[in-house]
Amino acid sequence: MSKLRIIPLGGMGNVTRNMFIYEYEDEMLIVDCGIGFPELNMQGVDLLIPDATYVHDQLEQGKHIVGMFMTHGHDDHIAAAGYILPELPEFPIYASPLTAAFATQRMSDHHVDREITPVRDREPVQLGYFSVETIATTHSVPDTKHLIIRTPEGVVYHGSDFKLDTNPIDGVLPDYDAITALARDEGILCMMVDCLRIENSKLTLSESTVKVALEREMANVRGKIVITLMSSHIHRIQQAVDVAVSMGRKIVFIGRSVEQNVEIAILLKKLDLAKEHIIDKRRIEDYDSDKLCLIVAGSQGQEGSSLIRAIFGEHQVLHIDPADKVIFSADVIPGNEQPFYNAIDELARVGVDVVYPDIAHDLHVSGHASAPEQKQLIELAQPKYLFPIGGAYRHRKLFTDLAMSIGYDRQHVLLPEDGQVVQFEGDEYSRGEKVLLRDLMVDGKGIGDIGTVVLSDRKVMSQNGMIVLVIPKYKGEADLSNIQVISRGFIFMKHADEFVENIKKQTAEIMEELKKSNEKEGDLLRRLERRLARRIDKMIGRAPLILPVFMDVE
Amino acid sequence: MSKLRIIPLGGMGNVTRNMFIYEYEDEMLIVDCGIGFPELNMQGVDLLIPDATYVHDQLEQGKHIVGMFMTHGHDDHIAAAGYILPELPEFPIYASPLTAAFATQRMSDHHVDREITPVRDREPVQLGYFSVETIATTHSVPDTKHLIIRTPEGVVYHGSDFKLDTNPIDGVLPDYDAITALARDEGILCMMVDCLRIENSKLTLSESTVKVALEREMANVRGKIVITLMSSHIHRIQQAVDVAVSMGRKIVFIGRSVEQNVEIAILLKKLDLAKEHIIDKRRIEDYDSDKLCLIVAGSQGQEGSSLIRAIFGEHQVLHIDPADKVIFSADVIPGNEQPFYNAIDELARVGVDVVYPDIAHDLHVSGHASAPEQKQLIELAQPKYLFPIGGAYRHRKLFTDLAMSIGYDRQHVLLPEDGQVVQFEGDEYSRGEKVLLRDLMVDGKGIGDIGTVVLSDRKVMSQNGMIVLVIPKYKGEADLSNIQVISRGFIFMKHADEFVENIKKQTAEIMEELKKSNEKEGDLLRRLERRLARRIDKMIGRAPLILPVFMDVE
Repeated sequence: MSKLRIIPLGGMGNVTRNMFIYEYEDEMLIVDCGIGFPELNMQGVDLLIPDATYVHDQLEQGKHIVGMFMTHGHDDHIAAAGYILPELPEFPIYASPLTAAFATQRMSDHHVDREITPVRDREPVQLGYFSVETIATTHSVPDTKHLIIRTPEGVVYHGSDFKLDTNPIDGVLPDYDAITALARDEGILCMMVDCLRIENSKLTLSESTVKVALEREMANVRGKIVITLMSSHIHRIQQAVDVAVSMGRKIVFIGRSVEQNVEIAILLKKLDLAKEHIIDKRRIEDYDSDKLCLIVAGSQGQEGSSLIRAIFGEHQVLHIDPADKVIFSADVIPGNEQPFYNAIDELARVGVDVVYPDIAHDLHVSGHASAPEQKQLIELAQPKYLFPIGGAYRHRKLFTDLAMSIGYDRQHVLLPEDGQVVQFEGDEYSRGEKVLLRDLMVDGKGIGDIGTVVLSDRKVMSQNGMIVLVIPKYKGEADLSNIQVISRGFIFMKHADEFVENIKKQTAEIMEELKKSNEKEGDLLRRLERRLARRIDKMIGRAPLILPVFMDVE
Repeated sequence: MSKLRIIPLGGMGNVTRNMFIYEYEDEMLIVDCGIGFPELNMQGVDLLIPDATYVHDQLEQGKHIVGMFMTHGHDDHIAAAGYILPELPEFPIYASPLTAAFATQRMSDHHVDREITPVRDREPVQLGYFSVETIATTHSVPDTKHLIIRTPEGVVYHGSDFKLDTNPIDGVLPDYDAITALARDEGILCMMVDCLRIENSKLTLSESTVKVALEREMANVRGKIVITLMSSHIHRIQQAVDVAVSMGRKIVFIGRSVEQNVEIAILLKKLDLAKEHIIDKRRIEDYDSDKLCLIVAGSQGQEGSSLIRAIFGEHQVLHIDPADKVIFSADVIPGNEQPFYNAIDELARVGVDVVYPDIAHDLHVSGHASAPEQKQLIELAQPKYLFPIGGAYRHRKLFTDLAMSIGYDRQHVLLPEDGQVVQFEGDEYSRGEKVLLRDLMVDGKGIGDIGTVVLSDRKVMSQNGMIVLVIPKYKGEADLSNIQVISRGFIFMKHADEFVENIKKQTAEIMEELKKSNEKEGDLLRRLERRLARRIDKMIGRAPLILPVFMDVE
């Protein structure tokens, strides 16, 4: 008997890095291909990508990829494509028009040129055993879709990031009818549900409520209005520019991501803004301040973003004056508090009027469903199995509680870890094997060439710096009178002559002692390192990376 | 004419590291002596302390310190005493009994033994020109005081951290009468006000409301109840143990800070808990799980804390089982989100019932006054000048707005930066000079021996590691055939032979080229470093710290 197999390659328990493999007999269907964001202990890591080794293994065994769908245009669902697709054979890729354009843009950053076919809602695409159709839903980027995936073992509802917006900006409501009809006519075997915001018990406000807040905050500003927001949030941008235009202000977009996304959105008619209202950022000086509204990237206070450069006086064209007003139309993402509030504090310090969600209500609403919306979706779809996605472990736990409160038993809520194969055969779930996945870290141009050793060295050096001890060896004999000490990040070296001499002396002493032991060179160096570490800790209470090396000189 | 001078040595615009100098003629009075917490870019720094150079300078000029008061027992108000007091001459120190005991404990960590005299409220202590009395207020540690400081130029109200709790656990309400009488009989020249929570427009709930939430969450737990909270929050601990005892559970305290603080609080009768209810942590196994309530340190998910070691199975006596329930009775402090939620996620992952303020209302209430409480205090005191403290720049800005909304003009709200001298003479404010202050960073046993250079090296190494190139020199001639490459945190070196050879080759090439230029050694190495950096960036897109050094060998 054949089985439908679903393998989450990322995103289980850590929110981002979404990539799912649907497998039936010798066919694989891919859903999403997103990046993840490094944890605090992954210093210097730019981003994480899903580990596609499993897919390569299956290809080698003669299976093939029938196609790929992308659910929406956020980086944690599309931005790994530029890394992963070049290593895979060609296959058709589908997405809604805006998602396709955003993903194409991301891939072009990696000089990857793969065509993505834009699809229309409720028009199934047959890909081998699988038939996939998109249906409308609402989220913080337009053109977000849920997927109905028909398989020989039943229907899977792929309910990626969503909210149930009752009054969306583009008028496109979540397709409740499609879900109801599907539940009634075919029945849903398994439903994946974005559970990220299950901690919230109140209905998420409609995106359209933000307009009132923007009107309130944009009124009576003497100088420029500077609005910062998530650059893919086209509907938020729509509302901001609508208010600005109604106030007779011209619009300026500043920041690579904002400029690129807006260009795409206007082209695809997802953003309705006539050219005459837009001015090039190099022409700001030609207009009076009170006739300008600037939409600027950097809503998380990111180092190097346009907003941060402007705030600290380092932006070429954007200068923020005390008469201006800066509006943060975005919540801080957990972990970004320090740069986010530093940006606001600096504006407050120099006397610029600044508002942000903590003090100005409704300046931001979430794009994710709260608990009652998740419940509503489940009750509409009445799936046999539930599969919470997009949340951390605590969210999945609460989702399980929610499911049980409306009649599901624990066995019908699937909580696989990354790589855990979920199987369905004749309507019944079973647990498959666990695919081993690596944390694929991207740092610069290197992918997967750093691991725990490199990271732990980075951590030690970030905390206490390093000390390299070069011990020259003449004809196999260490010259302890000529030890060289190289150190950075440990203490301020220009005032540390005494310390360096001390370390040289201690190294020589320890080496003399150790030499008598006739140990192997490697063991000797490790013991030297440990002893020196103890002495340094005693002297100054720090634990730098200590690297003693011999250097053969003839 | 003499002036009253107030010099904030820390805490302006960055919340923590509180220390104020009050100065009149040749006398100085110190209020508080707290530590600060490092910013993200201060890697490896344990904590910050106020820079007391100004005080030392004044002492050298013949001034003297008449005494010191501490407002309450939080580390950002008391914990720098162990670093700063040993360098200063003896002077009397005063605080409320619990604050005195907590501060004594902190100083003993540094083997500093200075007596602190416990004071009673509304009993003025004359210290030279100054007369200081404490009055009761409420906060998240018992025995928190505001100070009334009488000076020859007028009365200063030192309104450090507070809330206006209408139903405090110990029954000690803020002393409204004292403030009213002071305003009426003497008039307040300047009032400092803790403005940290001014972003909140709702009244802060009374600490006593937490009890209901604890009763709700502690009911019907099959196994152990594990409660984690701020270890100095004795009133929270009081409520938790009251509920636990009423449920017939024994109390176990786990974690150095919790154990120390509880011992002190019981001794001073600030925590009411009979010995018979407490069990030693080594006797946990002697009791049934459902007869135990454990109060455990680590409410921020701090690495190495008792709670985190227990969660990850590394605690000697505390083991958390799926039948247990873990209660976080503390909000996450901004910046701690990742360890805090990682702890919760790990508990959820292994199936332990865990509740925290995001999902269980009233499990935590703040100890700081919201905007209406700050307003109430100001209206009661009617000071001539206002001086917001304890907040960041954005809070001070909002405080100014609040003050202006109740009739103050901008000139009567004082917003000095750290080190800016605030002066009063005959009831009038004037701006004094600005005292230069250094960021005094503590790392291990070293204080102030690391600065921006060390920190920027740590940052570079934390992001991309380091490469040391040792180029041996024989009789002044570089031996390019024997270059040694030592690298950590850059790429995984065991698989980097090719890369290392490449770097050696490139170094030799660049050196050959550069040698022709007849440059000085230092310039040569700097150019080598820059060129190599460019090549490495091109190869792998990383920017490690590159350290080329010559090594003279005979």
